[in-house]
Amino acid sequence: MTEQEPIYRGKAKSIFRSENPDELIVKFRDDITAFDGAKKDELSSKGVYNAKVSAYLFRYLEENGVRSHFVRMEDERTMIVRPLEMIPVEVIVRNIAAGSLVRNYPIEEGTPLDPPVIVLDYKDDERHDPMINDEIIVALGFMTAEEIEAVKQTALKINDLLKGKVDAIGLDLVDFKLEFGRHGDEILLGDEISMDSMRLWDKQTHASMDKDVYRFDKGDVMTTYAEVAKRLAGEE
Amino acid sequence: MTEQEPIYRGKAKSIFRSENPDELIVKFRDDITAFDGAKKDELSSKGVYNAKVSAYLFRYLEENGVRSHFVRMEDERTMIVRPLEMIPVEVIVRNIAAGSLVRNYPIEEGTPLDPPVIVLDYKDDERHDPMINDEIIVALGFMTAEEIEAVKQTALKINDLLKGKVDAIGLDLVDFKLEFGRHGDEILLGDEISMDSMRLWDKQTHASMDKDVYRFDKGDVMTTYAEVAKRLAGEE
Repeated sequence: MTEQEPIYRGKAKSIFRSENPDELIVKFRDDITAFDGAKKDELSSKGVYNAKVSAYLFRYLEENGVRSHFVRMEDERTMIVRPLEMIPVEVIVRNIAAGSLVRNYPIEEGTPLDPPVIVLDYKDDERHDPMINDEIIVALGFMTAEEIEAVKQTALKINDLLKGKVDAIGLDLVDFKLEFGRHGDEILLGDEISMDSMRLWDKQTHASMDKDVYRFDKGDVMTTYAEVAKRLAGEE
Repeated sequence: MTEQEPIYRGKAKSIFRSENPDELIVKFRDDITAFDGAKKDELSSKGVYNAKVSAYLFRYLEENGVRSHFVRMEDERTMIVRPLEMIPVEVIVRNIAAGSLVRNYPIEEGTPLDPPVIVLDYKDDERHDPMINDEIIVALGFMTAEEIEAVKQTALKINDLLKGKVDAIGLDLVDFKLEFGRHGDEILLGDEISMDSMRLWDKQTHASMDKDVYRFDKGDVMTTYAEVAKRLAGEE
C-alpha cells in the first residue's frame, strides 16, 4: 500500500485507491467528531478499536448471510473493502427510545420499541442529516421502492444478529446506523459498525458505552471503546 | 351561539362548544402567522376568505366521497363541524418541489413530483413540526399502520380532486397540508383547506397565490386571498 492522497476523507475514515480496481483501502483514523463536526478531537487508538469491532461484525454478518463491502483487514486500522457507490441515506434502527427520537417526539428515553423503528436520514452534514422518507428517496432517484424495502429487511435482519452479540456482552443495543451502497447490481452494507455508529447501554446501569460518552462528556472515551472492543471482538 | 371562551384557540381559528354535543363551532379569525408564529399580523377579512374556500372545498370533497368534519356554515367566518379527536400528524401532499422539500434535499424548486410525494410531520410548534414516519407514528400510538395507509390513500384522492379545481382557475396545486381526527370509529378530514394550507402558483408566471405572499412579503396578501376565493368559490 502506497501512502497517497485519499480519494475521500470522511470525519473518521480516509479512503484510498488500491492496485486492485475492485478493492479500496479504508483507514480508520483516530479522529472523533460529534454534532456534525462541531466538536472534534483526536484520541489515540480510537480508529483501531472501531476497525476491530467493524471487522469482527462484518465477518459475523457475512457468516449469517448479510453481504457487506468488507474483504479483509490489512493491519489493525486498515480495512480492504469492495468499492461501493454510496447511497446518501442513513438507515437507523431503534430498539429503545433515545437521542433524536426523544428530542423530536413525545416519548421518554428508555422506552422499548417493539417492533423496532427504522428511521431514514438524508446524509448531508451541511443540512444536518434531515430525516427523509421512502417517497422522497424515490423522487430523488436514490433507490426504488423495492430497493428501500429490501434495505429495510436487511437492516432488521442485521438488528436481530447484532442484538444477540450485544446482549451476550451485557449491553443493550439501543440503536445503530447503517449505510449501504451499490456494487454492480447488488446493494451491499458499507461504512462501519462500531462504537461511533451504535448506541450501547450497560444492561444494569444504563451507562453509555458508545460515542455518547464523547458527545456528552460522560467519562473516559477510550476506556469505554477499549472495553467494548475487548468484550465484543475478544482479546488482542 | 353564545360568545363564550373558546375551548381551543389555534393560530388562526378558535373553537367553541355548541349546544349540540355532536357539533363544535369554528371561528376563522383574521390572524395570520408564519414561521411557527414568529411572524404574525391581523388582516381584515382574511378569516372570511379562508372560511369560504374551506367550506366550498369540504362540500366539494363530500360530494365526491371524502367525508370531513364540515357540517354547515353559520355565518361568513363561522363553521359548524363535527367534534374530532385530532391526530397530531400533518399530512402534506406535494405535486411540485417547493418549501422545506427544496431546503432539505437536493431538488430544485419547481421540479414536478410524479407520483406525488406524501410527507408526514408531527404537529408540535415548539418542536417546529418535525418530520415523522409511519413506524414512529405507530410506536407513539397515534395511528395503526392500516390507518396510516388509509389516510394516505384519502390524501391522494383529495389531491386528485383538488388539482382539478385548482387547475380550472389557472393555478398549480404545488402542495397542501391536511389534518385528520377521530370521530367515533371513523377517521375524518378536519381543520381547513385554504390559502393558509395550500401552496398555489399561477400557471403562467409561477407567482405565489397563497400564504407565501405573506411569509415572504411578495405583495398584497388580502388581494391575493380575495382573488383565489373569488375564482375558486365564486362571486360575492
